[in-house]
Amino acid sequence: VISKLPQTGTTIFTVMSALAAELGAINLSQGFPDYNCAPELVELVNKAMQNGHNQYAPMPGLMALREQIAIKTEKLYGAVYNPDTEITVTAGGTQAVFTAISAVIHPNDEVIIFEPAYDCYAPAIKLMGGVVKSLELDPPDYRIAWDMVKRLINGKTKMIILNSPHNPTATILRKEDIDELSALVKNQDILILSDEVYEHLIYDNEVHHSMARYPELQQRSFIVSSFGKTFHATGWKMGYCLAPAYLMTEFRKIHQFLVFSVNAPMQHAIAEYLKDENTYLSLPDFFQQKRDYFREGLKNTRFQLLPCAGSYFQSVTYDAITDEKDSDYAIRLTKEIGVASIPVSAFYRKGTDKHVLRFCFAKRQETIDKAVDRLIKV
Amino acid sequence: VISKLPQTGTTIFTVMSALAAELGAINLSQGFPDYNCAPELVELVNKAMQNGHNQYAPMPGLMALREQIAIKTEKLYGAVYNPDTEITVTAGGTQAVFTAISAVIHPNDEVIIFEPAYDCYAPAIKLMGGVVKSLELDPPDYRIAWDMVKRLINGKTKMIILNSPHNPTATILRKEDIDELSALVKNQDILILSDEVYEHLIYDNEVHHSMARYPELQQRSFIVSSFGKTFHATGWKMGYCLAPAYLMTEFRKIHQFLVFSVNAPMQHAIAEYLKDENTYLSLPDFFQQKRDYFREGLKNTRFQLLPCAGSYFQSVTYDAITDEKDSDYAIRLTKEIGVASIPVSAFYRKGTDKHVLRFCFAKRQETIDKAVDRLIKV
Ligand SMILES: CSCCC(=O)C(=O)O
Ligand SMILES: CSCCC(=O)C(=O)O
Repeated sequence: VISKLPQTGTTIFTVMSALAAELGAINLSQGFPDYNCAPELVELVNKAMQNGHNQYAPMPGLMALREQIAIKTEKLYGAVYNPDTEITVTAGGTQAVFTAISAVIHPNDEVIIFEPAYDCYAPAIKLMGGVVKSLELDPPDYRIAWDMVKRLINGKTKMIILNSPHNPTATILRKEDIDELSALVKNQDILILSDEVYEHLIYDNEVHHSMARYPELQQRSFIVSSFGKTFHATGWKMGYCLAPAYLMTEFRKIHQFLVFSVNAPMQHAIAEYLKDENTYLSLPDFFQQKRDYFREGLKNTRFQLLPCAGSYFQSVTYDAITDEKDSDYAIRLTKEIGVASIPVSAFYRKGTDKHVLRFCFAKRQETIDKAVDRLIKV
Repeated sequence: VISKLPQTGTTIFTVMSALAAELGAINLSQGFPDYNCAPELVELVNKAMQNGHNQYAPMPGLMALREQIAIKTEKLYGAVYNPDTEITVTAGGTQAVFTAISAVIHPNDEVIIFEPAYDCYAPAIKLMGGVVKSLELDPPDYRIAWDMVKRLINGKTKMIILNSPHNPTATILRKEDIDELSALVKNQDILILSDEVYEHLIYDNEVHHSMARYPELQQRSFIVSSFGKTFHATGWKMGYCLAPAYLMTEFRKIHQFLVFSVNAPMQHAIAEYLKDENTYLSLPDFFQQKRDYFREGLKNTRFQLLPCAGSYFQSVTYDAITDEKDSDYAIRLTKEIGVASIPVSAFYRKGTDKHVLRFCFAKRQETIDKAVDRLIKV
């Protein structure tokens, strides 16, 4: 058969997690916690199953959950989404991203992405016959040069994909970015896909500039979030998408034939759990403490820290240590030192290598301690 | 925005289930049980969550689960699938179908389907730029005229989609069909997508002619199954796909960017539960008893029974009662008699109306009793 995605291999996350498992290395590569999610949340799922909530949820998601999502979104960002027509529960953030792209990208439509970029955007665009236009960003601060974005825009530009807090770079959009973006898309038929799966992981009292805060951006945006990231349960594959009704109508046309509906007992559980806003408002403190602890430890190594404003990733450069390619070095570090990371070149389609490794710090203190002890030896 | 699926409305399942809920009617429309799944299975999920299996499962699925699927498939159908390269766990049968189509259908490729057909096939084909070629089948036995299929085949034919046991008609493929199909595809580059989500729901000691039984068909087939249907937990959205490695490679390229991986604790639970073959070998007896009980009841009504060889659906015609369109009659029956069904015209893209209603009998005996009591009044 002729491949639809000829350039696609196995994702770097699978590769590095498998290598870490094989070698018994500390796995700071793929982004997931090494501690359990809240027992209360587990008990809510258990209760939902025992109460018989094991058959199809409604196609767009359980109404009780969509209502809680609407309440949270309005409380945090001031945007009013109608649960009936503007919110859909998805099988994780990835499914929401894929579905949004499938819903609106026609052959030859151009989509602007910023690299390094999470690796599911480009394949979904290509699968729909779209064309990826990318702007490569540079460490240490990976700022978007908006005048360069402007040059990429033409009559075929259908969508811009944003991701804040950003994976892998841990940067966040600032108010200046929002202003530039708003000016850029004003009076243009350009949609936004905003991957906000780390919306609650934002530090130093900064604000998450969700597209939901800015009506002129909000009305052209698909916004994606993830309960897996928010509730320390990445394996549940639960997320959601927000979009104005004219976009959500198209999203659901795909969603209903792609997956039809999403895990019912977990929707019941999360609907209940979300009622306590502390379940997500406590996240910045929780993760900032881990970030600071990990950064403190890394200061005793020969790695150089890049900034971390959000997400649960900390990147480093290693020019003082070696001039190897990051993809080689990540493997060697796993083998020789026993700490697995993600080489950030994997997030550039061209494999652009800026000698950056990404570590996930959503880990228990003892895991961070052990990893730092090993990294100090480098 | 320009719609990718302009002709798509809301699925009939959502429409009828919503109407049933609104009117408090007995819901025999959408295919799901009205009793709970096994408490042992629920307890296994609970245990998996408590044991911390709440983070990303491997992209193709938990190895322990893939191994159990391989064991079951070999035991039942004699086919050896390599869990490493030929089995992928999916978020339900629908996601497997969508992914298989996405993985191999290029623009202008033709796909043969038989109508009435489950409603997710055609949209997925169209979304990939493929062309649907369909053969309409007729009650009461909905036999496939293979000489007619032959006429649909040309150089552009990329795939044939089969579904046995069949939703909505409850027919099954017979050995003659397999022989005809084998002759047809021999020496041709035609793939098969075989939707076998009701594989265990087959009655009267008939054999399920899985594509996995026939090496020359198996080696060109994606086979889809569903734990939701098998384990009475449609709301869990758990299924899987089998395919030879050269096809599974392409399937996984899409899968990893579409959903990445599938609910982890439920994979752990099902892997354990599958070890007892009685969990699925008991299904024919379990459902045949329901089928017979429902059919017995319907004999006292003015509806005419169509055959039911598999699946948990029983169709009827109603020419002795009215000459209304089935879509109108299904709604009137819900409103006036309080029993919701699915009008089978919804499974034909042209809305071909053969005056057939489909009832789901995966229900408690008291639900069947109540429904029959009401239907007798017609
Ligand atoms: C879907 S696996 C990757 C998880 C993740 O978000 C990351 O590691 O970047
Ligand atoms: C995915 S909702 C429909 C369930 C089903 O298989 C049916 O009712 O035919």
